[in-house]
This record gives sequence, structure tokens and C-alpha cells, in this order.
Amino acid sequence: MALIVQKYGGSSVSDAESIKRVAKRVAEAKKAGNDVVVVVSAMGDTTDELIDLANQVTPMPPQREMDILLTAGERISMSLLAMAINNLGVKAKSFTGQQAGVITDAVYGKAHIVDVVPVRIRETIEKGTVAIVAGFQGVNKSSNDVTTLGRGGSDTTAVALAAGLSADVCEIYTDVDGVFTADPRIVPSAKKVDRITYEEMLEMAACGAKVLMLRCVEFGRRYGVPIHVRSSFSGKTGTLVTNVPAVVGAGAANAASEETEESTVEDPIITGVAHDRSEAKITIVGVPDVPGTAARIFEVVATSGANIDMIVQNVSAAATGLTDISFTLPEADGPQALAALRAVKDEIKFDSLQFDDQIGKVSLIGAGMKSSPGVSAKLFAALRDAGINIEMISTSEIRISVVTRQDSLNDAVRAVHTAFGLDGDVEAVVYAGTGR
Amino acid sequence: MALIVQKYGGSSVSDAESIKRVAKRVAEAKKAGNDVVVVVSAMGDTTDELIDLANQVTPMPPQREMDILLTAGERISMSLLAMAINNLGVKAKSFTGQQAGVITDAVYGKAHIVDVVPVRIRETIEKGTVAIVAGFQGVNKSSNDVTTLGRGGSDTTAVALAAGLSADVCEIYTDVDGVFTADPRIVPSAKKVDRITYEEMLEMAACGAKVLMLRCVEFGRRYGVPIHVRSSFSGKTGTLVTNVPAVVGAGAANAASEETEESTVEDPIITGVAHDRSEAKITIVGVPDVPGTAARIFEVVATSGANIDMIVQNVSAAATGLTDISFTLPEADGPQALAALRAVKDEIKFDSLQFDDQIGKVSLIGAGMKSSPGVSAKLFAALRDAGINIEMISTSEIRISVVTRQDSLNDAVRAVHTAFGLDGDVEAVVYAGTGR
Repeated sequence: MALIVQKYGGSSVSDAESIKRVAKRVAEAKKAGNDVVVVVSAMGDTTDELIDLANQVTPMPPQREMDILLTAGERISMSLLAMAINNLGVKAKSFTGQQAGVITDAVYGKAHIVDVVPVRIRETIEKGTVAIVAGFQGVNKSSNDVTTLGRGGSDTTAVALAAGLSADVCEIYTDVDGVFTADPRIVPSAKKVDRITYEEMLEMAACGAKVLMLRCVEFGRRYGVPIHVRSSFSGKTGTLVTNVPAVVGAGAANAASEETEESTVEDPIITGVAHDRSEAKITIVGVPDVPGTAARIFEVVATSGANIDMIVQNVSAAATGLTDISFTLPEADGPQALAALRAVKDEIKFDSLQFDDQIGKVSLIGAGMKSSPGVSAKLFAALRDAGINIEMISTSEIRISVVTRQDSLNDAVRAVHTAFGLDGDVEAVVYAGTGR
Repeated sequence: MALIVQKYGGSSVSDAESIKRVAKRVAEAKKAGNDVVVVVSAMGDTTDELIDLANQVTPMPPQREMDILLTAGERISMSLLAMAINNLGVKAKSFTGQQAGVITDAVYGKAHIVDVVPVRIRETIEKGTVAIVAGFQGVNKSSNDVTTLGRGGSDTTAVALAAGLSADVCEIYTDVDGVFTADPRIVPSAKKVDRITYEEMLEMAACGAKVLMLRCVEFGRRYGVPIHVRSSFSGKTGTLVTNVPAVVGAGAANAASEETEESTVEDPIITGVAHDRSEAKITIVGVPDVPGTAARIFEVVATSGANIDMIVQNVSAAATGLTDISFTLPEADGPQALAALRAVKDEIKFDSLQFDDQIGKVSLIGAGMKSSPGVSAKLFAALRDAGINIEMISTSEIRISVVTRQDSLNDAVRAVHTAFGLDGDVEAVVYAGTGR
């Protein structure tokens, strides 16, 4: 008998029918002899509809009230799911984030979980009852007011609860079968990854793979919670995220461990190819190449609240002593970063600023590459052969990222996926809708 | 500077525009120098929509979960209203029933308020902030779970909070101008009553006047909270419910006290005419007229959960020693009362049961009638002249109720209203929509 935390996103509980389908799955897990805790997001588009209502009432909703408003969404889905499970003859009770002991800081709208004290949840499962917990919300301990956790909050609730309850596994149900070697909408031959480490998953998430949010993976890694990403539409096994590396198998994508007893080290393990269209590039043209200038520039940008990703500085022209500095950042952070830089133009004495939102980033991720030379050479050759220009490069121990033109990004993803032998034999199934 | 509790029903906050209109009214009361606490219902049909969702998921929703579900409605309206008030430059914060200290028993779905501990509300208004409180909900102290108060719950929340805060007045905003001498949809010449006692209002409410629920008036009377029933669509003064009787004026409907210094006692004061179509009549035919039979019958009916209103027992026929007993009860309680009686048919030895849901009840209410003979004679004469048959009669110190055929109820209301001189000169304004 295991203790399982299951999380269902908004697209899995978008109407009464889908709530009933989720209830059935929960009831099966319970009837199989497990203790089950379920974390649930708001139904379908509820959150967006509530935000829309708020915007109709005021252009500047106070964040405390916004959080109270948005938490109504999970209140609805959690109570409906509890009803549906009871209707199948399995006892279930729903709990708000506060009742479940999800304690956060006071940063309304994107609060961080500071502690989980799941006293009522533990009591509930000890009585043989399924506990349904509202995702995405907690309570600000100092004010006793409700808070929301921001994007990906329900995943984080699930992993945090799993940690607090020492659960055997945290199952994240979504609308895809798991983590893929690339986005199946771009690479139809992408394969599901059976097993991935937290570190690889963090790189995948940071580089644009949307199936799991960064925060939730970080939480899982910190507390060692095994995360099983799987589809709420099929019964298939999904992707297991743990700190145990995949067994090196006969291909690039990891086969399930039990099938690979005769495994041999052939290729460096590449887990997958991620891509990101949401970044933009700022180039500062004609910067005097004197000590301290770069430090000052990135100090200014950081103060503007922008999250810098990649940085490239050209060799300065000997004749002028001037250089160009480029960096990438989330496109949405662009305006404030530009404004902050313009404000120090006279101090830093650069010539001009360029803003480019037509970039794309392709990233190759795999724990095996750190001990394997030649990975970057193979990557660059694949892009060259596909006729794709590389604008920026950044690397970590288990990742290589490359910036290209946005309109050649899909070609880049496909070329890299093929070059590293990740293509499968069958097309991946893509479900309608988006995960949350 | 006064402390005012205002309550707005679902029809007053049915969309973003009406929430903004309510916000304006709240802001005006605050800017006029008052401390303001606002109790708000769920938006428009939200509660019905949530009930509908629950019924789609299960035929038998557990009541605890139902209460969690339904309280999402006020969560939405209260936070939106707080946002809209803030947008007008007036500070406002919203609170759930639990946060406002509304403590109830554990009867989910129709909980009773057992205590009000409005610590956070007091702190909030002391800081000059408007406190918005979710109506219709509280917290079950022993389990820390949310409860709902049942029909008319938001009015009760408002009056209970007003009592707990020792507010100067509790303003109940609705979609009519106040309490009328009769339902203006039936009697277009009905007049607004300026002032009415708790006792009269209780009789009006018990006899079918829907503007205020019984429980809320009972609460007001017990704690001496002045209740001002008024329209959220106009600026007009409405009806003040207190324990101070209206000054006896030159007509039947009470004029505002300041205009009636030269008042003389002319007619017994009749406050108004109420009517009720929601009751049914059960007749037990051929009951042996022996001691204890009636007691046994009504014991059985009470145990079935039915609320008995009027009872009539015929003189027994000398030849048979048998009598008929009729009583009225809410139509919805009929099936269980009939079932309970059928179960004791052999024990009580009655002949048969009749169920009649085509009855109507018209009630004449006024504190003045207790010291004035001839009121009932005048009432019966008015009905006789209108050709209306009286089936049952019941009286209290300040009320006479008469059961008629349902299809002659409107005629009965009009005849009585005219006979007691309640008709006004202008037609009452009837707003669209219904209060809650």
C-alpha cells in the first residue's frame, strides 16, 4: 500500500463529465489499496474568466483581493470532485490550501510555500478517506489571508504536499503522455522519455518544455519526491522524474530500465531537445570596452526586474575600443530593461540599443554529455547542414543552448532531434488542449 | 458618524456594472463620514449555477462539500466589490464568513449562527477601511469547516454582524423600495410602509411577504438591531423595522413620524396584507373523536419534519363519533407528512387522507388590531362582498389569516387592501428581478 499524491490540471477537470472521469481514476487508485491525496486546479478557463471579471471592475485590482477571487476557482473544482468520488462509493473530503496547511509568504499572486503542515490531510487519509486539496493556494501565516502561488502553482502544491506527507510518489496528470524528447507538435517522431533526473528536467523546463514548471521540479529535487508525469486521458505509464539517472540504453531516449539489462555505453545520453520562443534579445551597440562596464550594465538590467538568460560580448574593435554586448531575456521583461538602459546611456556612453523579439532558442539536454566530448560539435554540424545560423551559444554541464532566428526554430529542433538519434518509429499522440 | 452595515443581494451585484454601482453607493456612505461594513451575496444566479453543476456530478452531493462549493459564490462577489471600491479611492478589504468571525453550528446547508466574533472586522473599520463580508456563510467551530446558512442567509449575516458590532443600523438593499402594504404586483396601489415593528414584520414574513426572511427579523428583534429595507436602484428612504411602533396617523399606512405630530387615533393600524401560495392542506377524514387522537396525529406529522401552520377540527358528527381534521403546511413538506400519516392509519383508525395544493392564504397584519374590535368582521365582510369563500381561519394578536382557493387569492388580497383603506394614490414601482 502506497501513499500517492495525484494532481489534475484545469483541462482534466474542465466540466462535469471530465470531473467524473477523474473521480473514477482516483477511486481506482484508492480501491487498489493506496492512500490517495488529490490536488486539483480550477476548472478549465475559470481562472481566466475571473481575471476578466476583475479587469471589468477595475484596471488595478489589489493583489490581496485578486487572490481571494482566484481561489474561488479551486473551491469549486475540489468540492465537485469530492462529490463525484463519494458518488462512486469512496469517501472523499475537500480542503482549501489553508485547511491543508499550505503556508506561504505574503507575496500575493506569486507566493512561495514556506511550510506544509498537513495535519488534517493526515487525519483524513488515516480514516481511509481520500483528501482533495485545492491547488495553487495557501495561507499567509502572518495575516491569515489566502494567497495564490502563481503559474504552475498547483504542481508545486502537489509536490510540496507529497514532501510534507512523505508520499511514495507525486503523480502529475496532464494532457500529454509525459515528457518527450521534443515537442511532438514540432517533431512528430518525438518519443516519450521514461525516466529523467531532476537536473535534466530543470534544464528542460528552464529551456521551454512546458509540461512541468521549474518551481515544482526544484521542490521535488530539494525533498527527493519522485514525480510521475502522465496523461489523465490514458492509462499509460508516463515519465518518472527522480534523482536516479536513466540506464544507458541502446538508443538516445532512455528505455525502461527493466528492458535494458544488456545495456552498453554507446552514445552520450541525450534526454531531449527543448525550445523556447518567448525570449528576446537586447544588443547594446558601441560600449566602451573598459573594466566595470559590463558589471554596471547588468546591475542596471537586474534592478529593472528583468531575468537575464544568455550573454554574449564581442571582441572589441582595436581601432575604436568599442564593443557590442547582447543578452537574452523574457520578451515581457524587454520594455523595462530598455527603459532602465536608456536612463544610463550618458553614464555608460554606449551608442544605441537594439531590441530583437524574433529569436528562438533550441536546447539539447542530457546528463550524459558532461563526460562526452564532441556533443557540441555534432550539434553545430547538424544546424549547419540544415542551413541554420547560430547567433548565440550558452552551455551548462548538461545542456547546450543556441539562439537562432525564430522562423527557423522548428527546423533547428527537428535537425538536432534527428542528429542525436532521438527519432522514434511511431508518431507521438498529441491531445487537444493545454496543460496547466 | 455612524456605524452602518449594508447588505446587497445577488440581483444588486449581478454583473461588473452593478458591482460598480454598489461600490459607488458604499463609497458615498464612507465618504459621508460613516464606518461601513458591507455584506454581499453571490452574483446573480451563481448559486443556482453551482447547484446545477453539483447535480451534474452526483444525484446526492454530500452537504459538507455542497457548502464548500456554494461559498465560492460570495468569494467572487466580495473580492470584486472590494476591488471596485478601492478603485474609487476608498480602502476596502473582503473577508469570508470565517474571517469575519461568523460562527455556526454544524448543520451544513442551513446552519444557525451561534456567535459572532468580528475581531478582524472591528480592526478593519478602525483603520478607516470598508470591510466587505461574504454573506450566507460561516464556520463550524468544532470542525473548522465552512457552512452555509440556507435561504435568506445573507440577510441574517448582515443583522448578526450589525448586532455583534453594535451598529447603528443594518441596511438591507434589495430590488424593491421597502415593505409594502401588499405585493405591488397584485395590488398596484399598494403603498410603501415607512416604519414597522419587528412583530409585524415577523407576521408579514411568516405570511408570505418575501422582502425579509423570518430568521433575519427574529435576529434583529432579539438584539434590537434597526433594519432599514431599501432599494439599491434608487436613493429613496425605505422601510425601517424597529421595536418602536409607527405613530398612528391619518390613514392606515403609517406616515413618517415627523409628519404626524397632529396624529389622532382614527382607525386601528393595519400595516399590510400578505399572501402565500406555497402552502397545501391535508385533511384527515373520519377520525374517531376520542381524547389523544389529535395529539398523536400532530406528533406523527411533526416527526416527519413538516412545519404545520393552521389547524381546523370540525365538530364531530353525533351519529358516528367521527370528525375531520385539516391542517396546512408548506407544499414541499406534503409528501413526507402524508407518508407518515399513512403509516399510522391502522393505529389511528381514520378513513382517508386528502391533499389539496390549490389553496391560498391572505393575512391582514397590524399591531393596532389587538385593541380594536371589529377587524375580523370587516375582513370577512370584504371577502364575502368579493364573492370569496373562506375555508380556514387563524388569528394571532396582530394578524388574521384566511385560507381561500388559490385562484381567488389575488382578488382576496385586493378586496382586503381596499376595505382597510390601504390603497395609495400612485402606483408602486415594481423593479425587475427578485431579491434574495
